[in-house]
Amino acid sequence: MDTKTMPGKAPAAASQDAGAITAPTQFIKTKLETYAYRRFGSGAAPPLICLQHFTGTLDNWDPAVTDPLARGREVILFESAGLGRSTGDVPTTVSGMAAHFLAFADALGLTRMDLLGFSLGGMVAQQAALERPSLVRKMLLVGTAPEGGEDIMHLEKPELRKILEDPTLAGYQVLVKLFFTASASSQAAGQAFVMRLAARTEDREPASGPKVAQAQVAAFRAWERVDGERFAKLRRITQPGLVVNGVFDNMIPVRNSYFLAEHLPNAMLLAYPDAGHGSLFQYHESFVQQAKLFLDS
Amino acid sequence: MDTKTMPGKAPAAASQDAGAITAPTQFIKTKLETYAYRRFGSGAAPPLICLQHFTGTLDNWDPAVTDPLARGREVILFESAGLGRSTGDVPTTVSGMAAHFLAFADALGLTRMDLLGFSLGGMVAQQAALERPSLVRKMLLVGTAPEGGEDIMHLEKPELRKILEDPTLAGYQVLVKLFFTASASSQAAGQAFVMRLAARTEDREPASGPKVAQAQVAAFRAWERVDGERFAKLRRITQPGLVVNGVFDNMIPVRNSYFLAEHLPNAMLLAYPDAGHGSLFQYHESFVQQAKLFLDS
Repeated sequence: MDTKTMPGKAPAAASQDAGAITAPTQFIKTKLETYAYRRFGSGAAPPLICLQHFTGTLDNWDPAVTDPLARGREVILFESAGLGRSTGDVPTTVSGMAAHFLAFADALGLTRMDLLGFSLGGMVAQQAALERPSLVRKMLLVGTAPEGGEDIMHLEKPELRKILEDPTLAGYQVLVKLFFTASASSQAAGQAFVMRLAARTEDREPASGPKVAQAQVAAFRAWERVDGERFAKLRRITQPGLVVNGVFDNMIPVRNSYFLAEHLPNAMLLAYPDAGHGSLFQYHESFVQQAKLFLDS
Repeated sequence: MDTKTMPGKAPAAASQDAGAITAPTQFIKTKLETYAYRRFGSGAAPPLICLQHFTGTLDNWDPAVTDPLARGREVILFESAGLGRSTGDVPTTVSGMAAHFLAFADALGLTRMDLLGFSLGGMVAQQAALERPSLVRKMLLVGTAPEGGEDIMHLEKPELRKILEDPTLAGYQVLVKLFFTASASSQAAGQAFVMRLAARTEDREPASGPKVAQAQVAAFRAWERVDGERFAKLRRITQPGLVVNGVFDNMIPVRNSYFLAEHLPNAMLLAYPDAGHGSLFQYHESFVQQAKLFLDS
């Protein structure tokens, strides 16, 4: 295991008092690439590795979600290849992304863990559980879809284009529109969410550019394809799962969560009202409570 | 308020130490009919009124569900008209059933309550919330469907006929097949469930006959009809709701729970793996935990 610190001069071990806002970025060189990551928290439970959404970096993890979960277990945020300060290129397949995650887990010496996979990260979590079942104890699959799922991140859809091409929306304000519904309470939750993200002002990751988005969209298109019996692979993912989404997710519609719950042999479904893709951020108190119930049971 | 005790010589007040197995049956005469009911438990929370499933009587409430919920609130099991020892005829519409429930609630002097509506009982709960919104604080809607729902209790379907016409299945064993999946663990949970029901040996209700089933099936057929904009009425049910089902319910398929979660403005959805219509009995520990989280939040 070769842990190199780069810009952040971070300690190799977990920062017990830190959270998503203050944890220093660390770097680890592996057989594939050198990955940026952050780790914080402690406890007897297996570590929880967080796998990020489309174009998101380490800076996109909501402290209102990660920090309470870090009371009781170590939380490790992973930056996959080609994102932020991790080296390499973004793969154009989910299995390519899973290979980076597995290289990272191996380099850290992790042998048993829980996964929080959000959106694209939930696809990587499923793929990793298929390829290395012994590594994964439990999975939180939020706002995501199975292989063979439907209407996954079609940014060309009018309702998404309207947001993505709106010149009045900049930076995090795009997320407020993409991840939350149009209701006043959901939009208010969205503003609170991006305020929390903005609280990290130093040691941040560079934002993702169009090259990242293109490669990840290619991975979504490949993930939508049905090969053989649809959803058959899900039967082989026997780990306990908690599938979560908002009922009005227009990036990865909730019916993909229904597919997961109906085909994973051991996964409970939780769907939130008046919520979109970012249901875990909107209902962060409930989500953390449910996640702890699930992980600790 | 006119509370008459009939066969059970029961006290008029709640039996604080009793539960579903031991609570005496009580009777109350109202402007419509005289209804059998049982009440037990105590606590600061509003009372929880339990509305029963197709052909079920007071004896079909699982103590593993009702009794833990009665620690913290009073639980009241309601026997609607034409069932058990309640007088009158079973209505052929859900709104007819809701009228009986409202007459019962008024006669008991209840002005604010939570509802646990299972299957047919969940439809009565929705109707009551529409007709008397001020009466209902929160609703647990389990294994149920909105008005305009699909494939509701089609007993003529091959997979249900196979169970209902099986000469080797008698009494509660029919429920084990109807309410649970074919997996070994679900069937074992089913056997445990009916053992719990059988623990009540005295002061039981007479079982429902074909006349009850016919009237209730007529109500299901009427409930399936779509009048005007589908699911529009659900927008007017603004109470917090927790919608629960098993993903393999073949009596009232889970997509009806999806409809509820997508159209009720304030309802969270919970769906259990490897579970059928009786998910609340199969996962009684999780269900009680979730119900308490919901009711107490």
